[in-house]
Amino acid sequence: MWDTRRAAKADRIRAGAAHSDGKLIRPSELTDFFHAVLRPADRVALEGDNQKQADFLSRTLAECDPTRIHGLHMLIPSVSRPEHLDLFERGIAGRLDLCYAGPQSVRIAQLVEDGTVHIGDIHTYVELYARMFVDLIPDVALLCASAADEHGNLYTGPNTEDTPTIAEAAAFRDGIVIVQADEIVATDSLARVDIPADWVDFVVQADRPFFLEPLFTRDPRHIGDVEILTAMIALRGVYERHEVVSLNHGVGFDTAAIELIIPTYGERLGLKGRIAKHWVLNPHPTLIPAIESGWVESVHSFGGESGMNDYVAARPDVFFTGADGSLRSNRALAQLAGQYAIDMFIGSSLQIDRDGNSSTVTDGRISGFGGAPNMGHDPHGRRHASPAWLNLAHGEGSSRRGRKLVVQMVQTFRASGVPTFVEELDAVDVGQQAGLAMPPVMIYGDDVSHVVTEEGVAYLYKAHSLADRRAALAAIAGVTPIGRAADTKRTEALRRDGLVAFPQDLQVETRLANRSLLAARSIADLVAWSGGLYEPPSQFRDW
Amino acid sequence: MWDTRRAAKADRIRAGAAHSDGKLIRPSELTDFFHAVLRPADRVALEGDNQKQADFLSRTLAECDPTRIHGLHMLIPSVSRPEHLDLFERGIAGRLDLCYAGPQSVRIAQLVEDGTVHIGDIHTYVELYARMFVDLIPDVALLCASAADEHGNLYTGPNTEDTPTIAEAAAFRDGIVIVQADEIVATDSLARVDIPADWVDFVVQADRPFFLEPLFTRDPRHIGDVEILTAMIALRGVYERHEVVSLNHGVGFDTAAIELIIPTYGERLGLKGRIAKHWVLNPHPTLIPAIESGWVESVHSFGGESGMNDYVAARPDVFFTGADGSLRSNRALAQLAGQYAIDMFIGSSLQIDRDGNSSTVTDGRISGFGGAPNMGHDPHGRRHASPAWLNLAHGEGSSRRGRKLVVQMVQTFRASGVPTFVEELDAVDVGQQAGLAMPPVMIYGDDVSHVVTEEGVAYLYKAHSLADRRAALAAIAGVTPIGRAADTKRTEALRRDGLVAFPQDLQVETRLANRSLLAARSIADLVAWSGGLYEPPSQFRDW
Repeated sequence: MWDTRRAAKADRIRAGAAHSDGKLIRPSELTDFFHAVLRPADRVALEGDNQKQADFLSRTLAECDPTRIHGLHMLIPSVSRPEHLDLFERGIAGRLDLCYAGPQSVRIAQLVEDGTVHIGDIHTYVELYARMFVDLIPDVALLCASAADEHGNLYTGPNTEDTPTIAEAAAFRDGIVIVQADEIVATDSLARVDIPADWVDFVVQADRPFFLEPLFTRDPRHIGDVEILTAMIALRGVYERHEVVSLNHGVGFDTAAIELIIPTYGERLGLKGRIAKHWVLNPHPTLIPAIESGWVESVHSFGGESGMNDYVAARPDVFFTGADGSLRSNRALAQLAGQYAIDMFIGSSLQIDRDGNSSTVTDGRISGFGGAPNMGHDPHGRRHASPAWLNLAHGEGSSRRGRKLVVQMVQTFRASGVPTFVEELDAVDVGQQAGLAMPPVMIYGDDVSHVVTEEGVAYLYKAHSLADRRAALAAIAGVTPIGRAADTKRTEALRRDGLVAFPQDLQVETRLANRSLLAARSIADLVAWSGGLYEPPSQFRDW
Repeated sequence: MWDTRRAAKADRIRAGAAHSDGKLIRPSELTDFFHAVLRPADRVALEGDNQKQADFLSRTLAECDPTRIHGLHMLIPSVSRPEHLDLFERGIAGRLDLCYAGPQSVRIAQLVEDGTVHIGDIHTYVELYARMFVDLIPDVALLCASAADEHGNLYTGPNTEDTPTIAEAAAFRDGIVIVQADEIVATDSLARVDIPADWVDFVVQADRPFFLEPLFTRDPRHIGDVEILTAMIALRGVYERHEVVSLNHGVGFDTAAIELIIPTYGERLGLKGRIAKHWVLNPHPTLIPAIESGWVESVHSFGGESGMNDYVAARPDVFFTGADGSLRSNRALAQLAGQYAIDMFIGSSLQIDRDGNSSTVTDGRISGFGGAPNMGHDPHGRRHASPAWLNLAHGEGSSRRGRKLVVQMVQTFRASGVPTFVEELDAVDVGQQAGLAMPPVMIYGDDVSHVVTEEGVAYLYKAHSLADRRAALAAIAGVTPIGRAADTKRTEALRRDGLVAFPQDLQVETRLANRSLLAARSIADLVAWSGGLYEPPSQFRDW
């Protein structure tokens, strides 16, 4: 018997057919459909993405009868919705592999502690996809599309994200692919086909459009002088110094500040055309002024961003778009690009320990990894060179090679007055409490090439020893306990040797560090820069 | 002007329409079509894959008029065919980004030296794909399919390989996607849709089926006692010791020997169900006995293998297959799986230097990297654990993490009597001659966790210093100059400390090391194991 999965699939499809017309599930019968098609202990991939959510499917699954469906092993990239955990409280699911759990991170920690959720592992996005082709192959995939036709052809819309990758893992291993679509349309009315009907077993029209969170929108009003100073330091001390041409920005006000001073301070420094031309990131509204000023040659995206669709569609020379004109994103490929094809990853963090390890895990939250570790390390499998990569070259003879810039950008204190630099990461405790094999460190100190604060830059890639690395970090850690322990003489030696640079070493004009340097100071300014094409979600409007 | 690419695409499509009926190019007018559609200095991705070749397109392109089409920038993953380089000799192309150049590696080195080929860079496969979304976005993609319909829906067949990834890079950035298909069929006769018509601008029926090389077939007749002994050492010293559950095997007789003793020696050791369950590799014929003996739970593949299609289609519980029953492969996703989701990469090499750096570049060939470096390093972006990964854990506190097994398997001397272990890699010279920024090292010594020879295993991941690593390597380097320099006392200390193990340390029954241990001793045996489903290419048949 070599086709047990195929035979099981045929059985399930027959059972599901009682609640569908062709491939179209009758929406009112979705619960019965799940009862008919799912089996206890199935491995179920649920699209829980970073942004979009197959929430009609997840809400309905959570209402199923646990005497009929129980012990599911859920693969959820981003555990974002309450019903993702209701599944466990109701006994429908027992085991969870995940990547990220932002809004649910406190509750998940509690459910792990009381034994309701058994964590398989916490991954980065690409790791979880990778395992879907190896030892976590889904029996069922519950996915999300903007539109579908009756045959199952899918238009995934600007937020393509994880859909094609998860669909492929299930569809080509005799898993059942079930998709909710915002609308069912005639084939010739589909904007485009992102996933062919062959890959899709069932489609259901959702009761309302799938949930989508504007995760990458940062209101410039919240960017203050300290963020601007730090951004200026980063621009001179990192972007200009290493000629960073291709890059990813994480989400956060620190990198948003950089995006907003590129067309002002970057212009004044004469950097246009020399840095920041090729981007791997979602359509950040704060990137609009740099795009409109002609700095940006290309952007490849993991997903979309609420309100940016019309703007993106009007800028096809910059963004990846389909024949229909709308954004094409793809998280797996953007992660690949962000790992291997760019000079620099730069992101914010909440805590950095004295060795340079950083984490966004604090006070009892299991927030997971998302995508940062995949981009925030030096990929040892890289073999091509770029000027920035060669600029960090190390080693002798055959062992000589370049290095990716992995930059952590933080203020020495968080808004609440809590020091960013700490002796030990909270992640160590959280990891122990949750029984994880290793502490959930986001970016390891030995993978970080630079740390930037409002005090200056630590060029950690130049450190020859852990002691050097610690001293360089302490030198830019301000008046945190870690920073106060810095030795003045040693810091001066590190400045001479180029391991540390202060604003004056970088000719950063600190007097310019105020909000007048921002190309846009409000969401309304971004709308104006976009020529009215950017349509911010209501929570970002004050007019 | 934000739609220059889209406008240019519309122009080109109009020009191409003179030589096509709808999307179907008239085959006899393909040269004229290229003259009409391509522009000097275009960036052209040509599917040149590891196995399949869009050779109707490449042969025809090489016959174009260089006064009309010249200075093309070619992106060719695998430079495998003479016409790939004829393009440069005729002046049609000037710049080349590539990953691999097996059969053309000598000629390419000559053409680089005389300035006919300007190398952009030499990549691994995934790096080149990644750059197609960042700074090497194709203007034109020349691709390959088994079948197409008149709308441009594609069936890529068992050898999917690179097609979807390159198509996506071009299709969603207003590039022109041109596909050769072995046959044009009615839509309802397409076996399945692997790439939707929306992504494809033009299709042409090829003059003959695309070229496909059986790269992954190893005839068991060429496996001798030394390979078998080395395989036994690997099985006990690596697979059994670290409980390697998920893995990739490179191509080579060393790893083929392992595949063929798993059902015999592995069975005797009681390892069934404990090791080697989940594989990322092409359908190696030498894996058939292990599959038939029930060792293998899953195989995800980069491409297919000639002669294996019927066998694969009959084993859907093991392989990824489509609704039509045939293999689905995908190089980008298999590389992702091979990088992040598996316990071990194990492969052969031609040269290893005293630091453990290895290369397949010898004597003036620019053979490139292919896929090995992506799988043959410890991915620092990995955050999930497995028993094997934890078994190699290192570091303290927050810095503690596991490690991927990266195993190099060689005989101390190559067949020609040339030592495998050398002071310095030939790659250093080759890199200098070709003007590469860095020597073309395949796997770096600090990324290698184990080296296995017929002498024993060097557990390099346990080395605390470069001196330890060198001594451990020397201990298993036999009577090569590197091996003869080993210090006996130091070797004994390394054995005691577990950095080196000889066959007797691993309880390897060397008396069993002969061909009777092979589950199959010939291609005919493999056919028999497969129940007649495996149909070896003619060059592997002697009956």
